[in-house]
Amino acid sequence: MTKTILIGHGSGGLMTTNLIRDVFLKNFGNTILDHLSDAAVTQAGKETIAFTTDSFVVDPVFFPGGNIGNLAVCGTVNDLSVTGATPLYLSCGFIIEEGFSINELEKIASAMADEAKKAGIQIVTGDTKVVKKGQCDRIFINTSGIGIIAPGYTHISKGLHVKAGDRIIVNGFLGDHEIAILAAREQLEFDQPVKSDVAPLNHMIGELLNAGIDIHFMRDITRGGIGTVLSELAGKINIGITIDESVIPVREQVAGACEIYGFNPLYLANEGKVMLVIAEKDAKKAVELLRKNEYGREARMIGEITDTNRGKVIMNSVIGSKRIIDKLTGEQLPRIC
Amino acid sequence: MTKTILIGHGSGGLMTTNLIRDVFLKNFGNTILDHLSDAAVTQAGKETIAFTTDSFVVDPVFFPGGNIGNLAVCGTVNDLSVTGATPLYLSCGFIIEEGFSINELEKIASAMADEAKKAGIQIVTGDTKVVKKGQCDRIFINTSGIGIIAPGYTHISKGLHVKAGDRIIVNGFLGDHEIAILAAREQLEFDQPVKSDVAPLNHMIGELLNAGIDIHFMRDITRGGIGTVLSELAGKINIGITIDESVIPVREQVAGACEIYGFNPLYLANEGKVMLVIAEKDAKKAVELLRKNEYGREARMIGEITDTNRGKVIMNSVIGSKRIIDKLTGEQLPRIC
Repeated sequence: MTKTILIGHGSGGLMTTNLIRDVFLKNFGNTILDHLSDAAVTQAGKETIAFTTDSFVVDPVFFPGGNIGNLAVCGTVNDLSVTGATPLYLSCGFIIEEGFSINELEKIASAMADEAKKAGIQIVTGDTKVVKKGQCDRIFINTSGIGIIAPGYTHISKGLHVKAGDRIIVNGFLGDHEIAILAAREQLEFDQPVKSDVAPLNHMIGELLNAGIDIHFMRDITRGGIGTVLSELAGKINIGITIDESVIPVREQVAGACEIYGFNPLYLANEGKVMLVIAEKDAKKAVELLRKNEYGREARMIGEITDTNRGKVIMNSVIGSKRIIDKLTGEQLPRIC
Repeated sequence: MTKTILIGHGSGGLMTTNLIRDVFLKNFGNTILDHLSDAAVTQAGKETIAFTTDSFVVDPVFFPGGNIGNLAVCGTVNDLSVTGATPLYLSCGFIIEEGFSINELEKIASAMADEAKKAGIQIVTGDTKVVKKGQCDRIFINTSGIGIIAPGYTHISKGLHVKAGDRIIVNGFLGDHEIAILAAREQLEFDQPVKSDVAPLNHMIGELLNAGIDIHFMRDITRGGIGTVLSELAGKINIGITIDESVIPVREQVAGACEIYGFNPLYLANEGKVMLVIAEKDAKKAVELLRKNEYGREARMIGEITDTNRGKVIMNSVIGSKRIIDKLTGEQLPRIC
């Protein structure tokens, strides 16, 4: 391990995993922390709850499709939702640089309130710290959240039912968020501007659960991209995953920006995308249901769980070869969320 | 209101209250947010829970008596404890500046783990972001926490039982934390060094509750000091409070530093102090019990609730006059927590 923190330690990829293992898990070590999902799933008295936290440092604060405020609300709502929880409460902790515009702060607060209303979650507690000019970059927001998990869904966050034959589904185009941030930062212009996909996914996921779709695992696809999410899943529960490059949904402009900047779309961050592992029998119906929701119009089945190649993600590429997909190493773009 | 964020907006005093009211409550407005305590008290299914968040930006990161890590754990444990809750779970969100020493990060994580163990709370979820050199000042930590409140204690956070004759108690010397930070920053030297009072108070408070002490309200005395805590209490539930300056416990070195820097000890921040409102009949016993705990050795009764002077805090000063104690305006020292 290096002796100082590097930008890559915040990538959400391999370096982040190693830092968490070598510094945080070593000290805080407990069985709740060391699981598959971003949220902890645990007991609070008689209730099974999900509890999660995220700090947002996105640059720029306002970007095409959203701002740090609705990003923070959606990020935490989605971390809760993928455990099978119904999100209930949010906290928000602000760290603000002296001189930040109160008008902009109001826009951020208003976006948070709108998104929370849309998601049906209440912001119930907060904290505000101010640091001097130059001691933080404009504004950082932490949102933590609590949700309740119904008894029938407690297996999801641990992936207990994942098995060979299960299908891998994503709810739409990958990479929009990261490319929207890149475009805002580099002042790129596209014929069709790319907007962040930031969205609260709890209602869309709820529709699947309510329809009785047998969801075996879910994970929101944020920092590290679909590549990292799949690689972690394969490693942690020791199954194989095969995906098909030709069906992975990526917008033309996003693919183009990736070529220019040398990014791999599989590692692009999203803020309104979820990877679902669905029982084979329900997979087709799940895609149909997803497509009825505004956040799932471009849902696709992109692969499946296998008995072979345990611990590995294999991609059948468009040129007919097979590639192993690992976690993101380093970082494609810092401060995307 | 000003058009930009000023350092005083993070003081925990009047400017913070106004910012929260004018920007956050206006947008997020709900009945849970707008109450007396830092933590939200609300329902999660069958359980009454407390939920709280705090971001820590203390400068320096390591100070006499502690560091940002155990400060973060204690701050959140105490916010939960004063609602009458048993703290259960903590989250931690790190924002780290590129180049920060991993050795120092390990010291911080280890201090967090030790303090969490002492408090009997589990760190169950986390998040790590890294920003470039100069985009934050070394390290910021958010801790959010969840606790469960037993049915008999749900009145405490709302102060529903507070009435004239109740006694005001503090568990020891006020202002140690802020003066320890000041000393570290200004390289002050005292004959007897002042150490931060940072401590988890849940067990001490639990001893009072278990002994059947009738606690009518509690609040940890952090940013804004005892003056702000009392002033908020008097205003929100419209009772009068009288305190006696002569019995307010302040160390000689702390009083001395206040004279030199023009600080008022009533507004100094603490990280291991609680203000308790106790039924008259139990007040003496409460002080005795507090004094048996390592964090309550210097507990004192400093005042009482009155029917007169509603909404106001009146201090009988050492020179025989009466003074009204208001919330802190502006800020004595930035980044104390």
